[in-house]
Amino acid sequence: MSARAGIVVTGTEVLTGRVRDLNGPWLADRLLELGVELGHITLCGDRPADIEAQLRFLAGQGVDLIITSGGLGPTADDMTVEVVSRFCERDLVLDPGLEAKIADIVTGLMARFPGVDPDAVLAANRKQALVPSGAEILDPVGTAPGVVVAGAPTVVVLPGPPRELQPMWDAAVATDAVQRAIAGRVTYRQETIRMFGLPESGLADTLREAQTRIAGFERLEITTCLRRGELEIVTRYEPHDAAVYSELLKVLRDKHSRELFSTDGTFVDDQVATLLAGRTIATAESCTAGMVAARLTDRPGSSAYVAGGVVSYSNEAKIELLGVDAALIEAHGAVSEPVAEAMAAGALRRFGADTAVATTGIAGPGGGSEAKPVGTVCFSVALADGTFLTRTSRLPGNRSDVRERSTTVAMHLLRRALTGDR
Amino acid sequence: MSARAGIVVTGTEVLTGRVRDLNGPWLADRLLELGVELGHITLCGDRPADIEAQLRFLAGQGVDLIITSGGLGPTADDMTVEVVSRFCERDLVLDPGLEAKIADIVTGLMARFPGVDPDAVLAANRKQALVPSGAEILDPVGTAPGVVVAGAPTVVVLPGPPRELQPMWDAAVATDAVQRAIAGRVTYRQETIRMFGLPESGLADTLREAQTRIAGFERLEITTCLRRGELEIVTRYEPHDAAVYSELLKVLRDKHSRELFSTDGTFVDDQVATLLAGRTIATAESCTAGMVAARLTDRPGSSAYVAGGVVSYSNEAKIELLGVDAALIEAHGAVSEPVAEAMAAGALRRFGADTAVATTGIAGPGGGSEAKPVGTVCFSVALADGTFLTRTSRLPGNRSDVRERSTTVAMHLLRRALTGDR
Repeated sequence: MSARAGIVVTGTEVLTGRVRDLNGPWLADRLLELGVELGHITLCGDRPADIEAQLRFLAGQGVDLIITSGGLGPTADDMTVEVVSRFCERDLVLDPGLEAKIADIVTGLMARFPGVDPDAVLAANRKQALVPSGAEILDPVGTAPGVVVAGAPTVVVLPGPPRELQPMWDAAVATDAVQRAIAGRVTYRQETIRMFGLPESGLADTLREAQTRIAGFERLEITTCLRRGELEIVTRYEPHDAAVYSELLKVLRDKHSRELFSTDGTFVDDQVATLLAGRTIATAESCTAGMVAARLTDRPGSSAYVAGGVVSYSNEAKIELLGVDAALIEAHGAVSEPVAEAMAAGALRRFGADTAVATTGIAGPGGGSEAKPVGTVCFSVALADGTFLTRTSRLPGNRSDVRERSTTVAMHLLRRALTGDR
Repeated sequence: MSARAGIVVTGTEVLTGRVRDLNGPWLADRLLELGVELGHITLCGDRPADIEAQLRFLAGQGVDLIITSGGLGPTADDMTVEVVSRFCERDLVLDPGLEAKIADIVTGLMARFPGVDPDAVLAANRKQALVPSGAEILDPVGTAPGVVVAGAPTVVVLPGPPRELQPMWDAAVATDAVQRAIAGRVTYRQETIRMFGLPESGLADTLREAQTRIAGFERLEITTCLRRGELEIVTRYEPHDAAVYSELLKVLRDKHSRELFSTDGTFVDDQVATLLAGRTIATAESCTAGMVAARLTDRPGSSAYVAGGVVSYSNEAKIELLGVDAALIEAHGAVSEPVAEAMAAGALRRFGADTAVATTGIAGPGGGSEAKPVGTVCFSVALADGTFLTRTSRLPGNRSDVRERSTTVAMHLLRRALTGDR
């Protein structure tokens, strides 16, 4: 027995590629975690006939659960609830409690838009309080509620914006209707390992070797993925195969002890945050221009250890704000290890911090040379005890890739400096 | 008359979201350029039954053209050509000319992998020389050829890797079979309008009004989408309806002159970059902690006008690095308009810039109060002539939303300050 699902992503902006669909992949991950098999993802525009055709197609494929995203807004082109209602053969009815709830939310929002006629807006939002009769309602995160309509298949209707869809998912899964639809699922364990500094082909090689050495290897469902410059290895297995997974973990540990930094799924960001407890950090950024500081402050509570930083895009800023010696820049160039160290030392001093990280590099597309091509980035971590950990990397990709990848390298250099793993 | 198409994206790694599908959006763009209407994109794994079901679904929807991507490799899980052959009711036949061509390519590749048995590889690649009888063959870019099978619908089979699929597209479109399939295409115009500071429901209201006032309104295909706090309005219409679109534009301009900032699709980032030509900008960021600086330096050539910035996360940093008066913080709090102005003024001074933008706010989840709840953010733009443009916003969402949205508000405040639209 098993449970199978399909996903219908609606929205002309998504179909035409103007907005990248984040919901399909995100929901695919959630279904995988639940042990529900995903058969199809279908995308269509804001056209009722196309949405309905996709629902009928998935139903014809015998899925137990359909999840739709998008088309719940107040504008006339948002028609998903109406279409789902017809598909499920339910009447569309006004839910007065829901209408009042949406009115409350909208009235709160209105305070920020004094020029807009509140009555017109409330009328527009009334459309969002129309739900298929008998549906379970998922409270709005924005202004749009989700709905769950039990049946064969059960249909879960979620809003399009990922920041509304994602928080609503748990509530959807908790409904009786969804629980009944996915009752046949298989429970898997899932473990995540992360590595940094290993090419994908090196990992592929190790996995091929593991395949010949580990009995039962074929019962592990291993998926690997390169993201933000790190390798993520997700393994799914049935609980009775836990020992096989332990064998795999041992092989990876033995072979890649330096690159393997997480066996419990934690990100380098989590680890750096833990390592910075009780410390104070400052940043000095050139090519990443604030992205390292932004990443360090991503998490709640980071003000306890982040003092601040300097974005020293120009040489003058490096000299004036970070106290880098002009002669050092003259001698080695702004993109050099000595300048990276001077920037880190300057950040330590200026912010009275005990930890500092500096980046200086050539993100491109211009500015590269034969000796320092585009993608050359120097990093330095300085600690209050006078130690420096300094590296130069040549990062692949375009301007945005180089900047993004640089923040990851900076995080790993911080991790190594703070764990004494130099 | 018109021409309609569907896209079938195959591959378990794409369906499960481990690899992001780039082919659907890319092909969608190409179809839009050709004037072919795209009805559906469907994704499935490497399962023959699912691929065939999607082909039958699209045929049932009456599309003139189906484009598939993926599943053309030499391994056993790549089955697209076989499935398409069956779907089109053609025999699968070995094309000896194609087999020789693939053998040539593979022999060349082998030189780079000395450990591999060339005979085994050639046997595996023979599979790729099997094509539906009567199909037009598209020369391989990697080792996999594409095929075009004429019919109702005509099916174009392309490889999965974007760097192979994209160069093959023009050859596919040039075939007689595809030209016949898309003979009914219509050339559309597409225009993009962007607004900031208007809720989606306010726009919905205006569009409903426009519907009653503008003759031919129903011939405009309007899609609206909220992203990064901005409203994007994309309208597609046939060239003879240009006057109807002009009417719509006039209504939107009249009603939302303050919020409408782009009628040619340019982003606020483009506009700010243009406005900053010949100027020098510095940033002073608290809650956004480098995100405004990162956004300003996103584009190549930004070093011409970005001097740098300070991330003044702590009060000490605001005082020491930006020269904010400690008494000002004491009197008004760090999140206040006077402090935002002092931060902007400090950035102007410290970097010798003529334009500065400052942010200070409560991103949450902690730190809010009744007077200044989470989401309260103060912004100030300072110019060298002594003018300030200062605003306080209450932004919705979680920590990451508030920070992201703040960068958008900062960009728009910059735009207003630099255009004199206060």
